[in-house]
Amino acid sequence: MEKFEIDILGCGAALPTPKHMSSTQVVNIREKIFMLDCAEGCQMALRRSRIKFSNIQAIFITHLHGDHCFGLIGLISTLGLLGRTKELNIYAPTGIVKIFQPQIDFFCSESPFKILLHEVDSRKQSVIYDDRSVEISTIPLSHRVPCCGYLFREKPTLLHIKRDVIDAFHIPISQINNIKAGLDWISPDGEVIKNSLLTLPPDPVRSYAYCTDTMYSSQVSDILKDITCLYHEATFTDEHSLLAKKTAHSTAKQAAKVALDANVKRLVIGHLSSRYKDESVLLKEAKTIFENTELANDGMKIKL
Amino acid sequence: MEKFEIDILGCGAALPTPKHMSSTQVVNIREKIFMLDCAEGCQMALRRSRIKFSNIQAIFITHLHGDHCFGLIGLISTLGLLGRTKELNIYAPTGIVKIFQPQIDFFCSESPFKILLHEVDSRKQSVIYDDRSVEISTIPLSHRVPCCGYLFREKPTLLHIKRDVIDAFHIPISQINNIKAGLDWISPDGEVIKNSLLTLPPDPVRSYAYCTDTMYSSQVSDILKDITCLYHEATFTDEHSLLAKKTAHSTAKQAAKVALDANVKRLVIGHLSSRYKDESVLLKEAKTIFENTELANDGMKIKL
Repeated sequence: MEKFEIDILGCGAALPTPKHMSSTQVVNIREKIFMLDCAEGCQMALRRSRIKFSNIQAIFITHLHGDHCFGLIGLISTLGLLGRTKELNIYAPTGIVKIFQPQIDFFCSESPFKILLHEVDSRKQSVIYDDRSVEISTIPLSHRVPCCGYLFREKPTLLHIKRDVIDAFHIPISQINNIKAGLDWISPDGEVIKNSLLTLPPDPVRSYAYCTDTMYSSQVSDILKDITCLYHEATFTDEHSLLAKKTAHSTAKQAAKVALDANVKRLVIGHLSSRYKDESVLLKEAKTIFENTELANDGMKIKL
Repeated sequence: MEKFEIDILGCGAALPTPKHMSSTQVVNIREKIFMLDCAEGCQMALRRSRIKFSNIQAIFITHLHGDHCFGLIGLISTLGLLGRTKELNIYAPTGIVKIFQPQIDFFCSESPFKILLHEVDSRKQSVIYDDRSVEISTIPLSHRVPCCGYLFREKPTLLHIKRDVIDAFHIPISQINNIKAGLDWISPDGEVIKNSLLTLPPDPVRSYAYCTDTMYSSQVSDILKDITCLYHEATFTDEHSLLAKKTAHSTAKQAAKVALDANVKRLVIGHLSSRYKDESVLLKEAKTIFENTELANDGMKIKL
């Protein structure tokens, strides 16, 4: 299987604590790194997780609350000190240009690489990034400010060859890539060997959604239908459901409801409020609705 | 002795590393906390050093390079989440209003306390803060952008009473504070007891200077004459003296020269470039000029 892994660098809510950094993740798809949110301290967390700074392709910010973006200017600055030359694309809802462009101009005027800020429309689902490995689209969320999640769908991988059949037909190595791509094999004496005889289906296509911060919304489930893994915020327990509503956050049960309705395979809950000394309460509540739930933690690795 | 301590939270140069956070210190004078610079991650360093956030009186930024101020907005935000109501005064050279006011307006619009930004004239020495415990003044430094150090001079403490003499004269407890403040004692039958008989001199007045970032300047020594302790940047070794000049930083020997010329009692060198795996080289070079030099480290506490 090609690599599709998520490193959760921080899964705390607004207040950074020794237990949890605020929201930051990296998605590694075939050794390309995509960052999700950039909390203060994220560059040190990257180092601790031994993630190569130079592999960062792009950064996706869900919304412009400090706990999701206060590490951005420091990271950009450090990438410059480390000698990056490749341009860096940063995606975020409306507002990022107004608030970050002046900082970039002021603090990173000598940056050796281009920094491109892209404002995305957080009110609709649309593809904002596409390469040969992955397609990334926005997920409209409901928070106190414009906010969107991000959905990663990997591109189909190549067919698997049946090594023994390939050998039996004496097919040269130079033709393997064509066969993996779906072509039939025509032998030197003109015989056509159907591709289906030579190959097995590719690995199933995997997908990952990052949904934080948001109040419960049933519409999100439609977008997330059948995805492999969902990271959903679960700031509060049921006891604080009024507070969740007031602050436009979700309870653990609401996160689980989204996962259930979307028929996702796996749910990870995060954006954990620092008020809960024992976070297993959140997990317990979510599991009453969606069994295959895990509690996020800083340093956790999700392999899809 | 009243408390006068410095916690070095970060003493690295521009690039934060697992070894050193960038420049941040706190000065604790009689349980009032003054922050010097605010690197990214400084709020976590405050927690690690168990420094009470609520005791922070004011913040002093030397200059507007990222490694000295990228932690400021996160710290302000966290102080708000922790419920601070007391106004916070922040001092920095010209530019802080332009670059930080918009961030404060955007990210901290619901802050429960007032945030007051003060632009100081980094080109001259002047007193910018004064209370009954301490006087703080700017130290003009020479860097690539407007930059100043900060000099802390504690206010004289009270006289020490001679307990046995006080007892011998049956002086009531209610009068002790007057005697500590220098008054004579007039007994009920009119006898005047000179204060000098009742007291010993107060503790010597202590002082601390924080000088970073700066190229070597002989004028700084005049301002620092006879101070108790000097923290001076020593980014480079002698081998890189040209680079020091080019980037407007100091070598370890230049820091030591300032300490020697100023006749300070104690020198701590910091703002250490990440290029030196073995930082003792910096210490060795400084000691050839000023013996009483120490190498800074994250977590180091200086007791004056």
